[in-house]
Amino acid sequence: MESLVGKLHRCSINTATLGHRDPLPVVVDQIAQAGFGGIAPWRREVEESHIPTLARQIREAGLKVTGYCRSTYIPAINRATFRANIEDNKKALHDAASLNAACFVMVVGGVPEGTTDINGAREQLAEGIAELLPVARSVGVPMALEPLHPVYAANRSVLNTISQAMALCNLVDPSNSGSLGIAIDVYHCWWDPDFFKSTMCAGQANRILAYHVCDWLYGTQDVLLDRGMMGDGVIDLRNMRHAVEDAGYTGLIEVEIFSKNNWWKRDVSEVLSICAERLESVC
Amino acid sequence: MESLVGKLHRCSINTATLGHRDPLPVVVDQIAQAGFGGIAPWRREVEESHIPTLARQIREAGLKVTGYCRSTYIPAINRATFRANIEDNKKALHDAASLNAACFVMVVGGVPEGTTDINGAREQLAEGIAELLPVARSVGVPMALEPLHPVYAANRSVLNTISQAMALCNLVDPSNSGSLGIAIDVYHCWWDPDFFKSTMCAGQANRILAYHVCDWLYGTQDVLLDRGMMGDGVIDLRNMRHAVEDAGYTGLIEVEIFSKNNWWKRDVSEVLSICAERLESVC
Repeated sequence: MESLVGKLHRCSINTATLGHRDPLPVVVDQIAQAGFGGIAPWRREVEESHIPTLARQIREAGLKVTGYCRSTYIPAINRATFRANIEDNKKALHDAASLNAACFVMVVGGVPEGTTDINGAREQLAEGIAELLPVARSVGVPMALEPLHPVYAANRSVLNTISQAMALCNLVDPSNSGSLGIAIDVYHCWWDPDFFKSTMCAGQANRILAYHVCDWLYGTQDVLLDRGMMGDGVIDLRNMRHAVEDAGYTGLIEVEIFSKNNWWKRDVSEVLSICAERLESVC
Repeated sequence: MESLVGKLHRCSINTATLGHRDPLPVVVDQIAQAGFGGIAPWRREVEESHIPTLARQIREAGLKVTGYCRSTYIPAINRATFRANIEDNKKALHDAASLNAACFVMVVGGVPEGTTDINGAREQLAEGIAELLPVARSVGVPMALEPLHPVYAANRSVLNTISQAMALCNLVDPSNSGSLGIAIDVYHCWWDPDFFKSTMCAGQANRILAYHVCDWLYGTQDVLLDRGMMGDGVIDLRNMRHAVEDAGYTGLIEVEIFSKNNWWKRDVSEVLSICAERLESVC
């Protein structure tokens, strides 16, 4: 496995890491000037921009777009909402293409509120992804199904492990068209006893489209907004990247840290500098 | 699947559900008088009692002990602490026998603090369980490995799914001696895409030693102490009990709710009465 020392061009910053404090055009320059090779922006900041202008700025700054975050949740309490969710994702796929994103990150949604139907939600998910697949193919941006930590199964994602995401890929896209794969985020998957086995399967099928790093703090205060900086927690980051790259992944390593009470309060330049240090020393 | 209406003798109360507010002898009477058939006490309340007297009170109240909570965490930062943890669990197994407990509930412990060695922690776990197995056999109380929700992988349990727990059972106790099995708690397992398959495997091997219910609230405030009452959350309780009983489990259904800001503040009689109602109506 290649060391990341001096290899920041192999690393990307998800804009959530910086707390969405500055406008996106400012953030693009901050990330590029810090020496990183990629950026992963969010829809809420992209959709308020003039997208072609933004795309040109990112390209001219020398940044790759490692992922466009993220899908509208798919499972819904009724058919009309399900339809609206799918149409919303089609529109976002077109924007992902305008940005030349390496993938559209699919955070798929939880159990429709007020129900106990996780199995039904998973069925809706399969149906929705199947409908989106030809759109992804036609715009040329693959969808990256991101299994989320099981702590989010109720309200954010009924897709919770790499092997479950791979089963969905194989169900909906058996021909492995190149338009459907997975995003692996260490925060969501570090605990999984099947991590190494399922990552190898995903890589052998060329399905790994993104790799996200941060850390899980031993005494996590908030499972949504208290992610740790790489090296500050319990995740065996080196072994996990080894597995992902051994499986054939050659894309960028993206830092995604939601940290309301710590990193989002620090200066952007300090956060970027520590991200760089830790990518080199512990990832 | 048999309805639980009028079948409270098939149901048990884990004393954590009542918030550990009254002394255990009082709680035993409260649970028995409410009509339940079982109790699951905790070591901290048992160890401050005269255990033979307590055991007699429980027996005379007509209650089964559905589980003795819980093991000392096993993985440790050094060998001396590991040894102390094992010896502590041996002592607790003897107390479980004095209580005539149906099982000793094993919450196995997380990643040793300050390390990133989840794999090493899992190896320590296998070694520890192997050493405890002959003790469990000699005192006549089986150990129930309880897979905990992956949100606790850092600091409470590196054992996180039913299939992982079953793999450990089969590794350490290949002859299926009757002294090692699993506890299934819906809070920990409801999200698992492999729940139905792995539960069937566990049941066919006669490894299911306990079944715990509560609910996962859609907007959970605290993953440790904000469990919901059955029926108030997203868990498909009826399908899960169906799977567990279809797999051959014939033991009691135990209610275990940690709820600092809600149920632990209500009158014990109200809590027991609502537990009974919900066991009958949604479990």
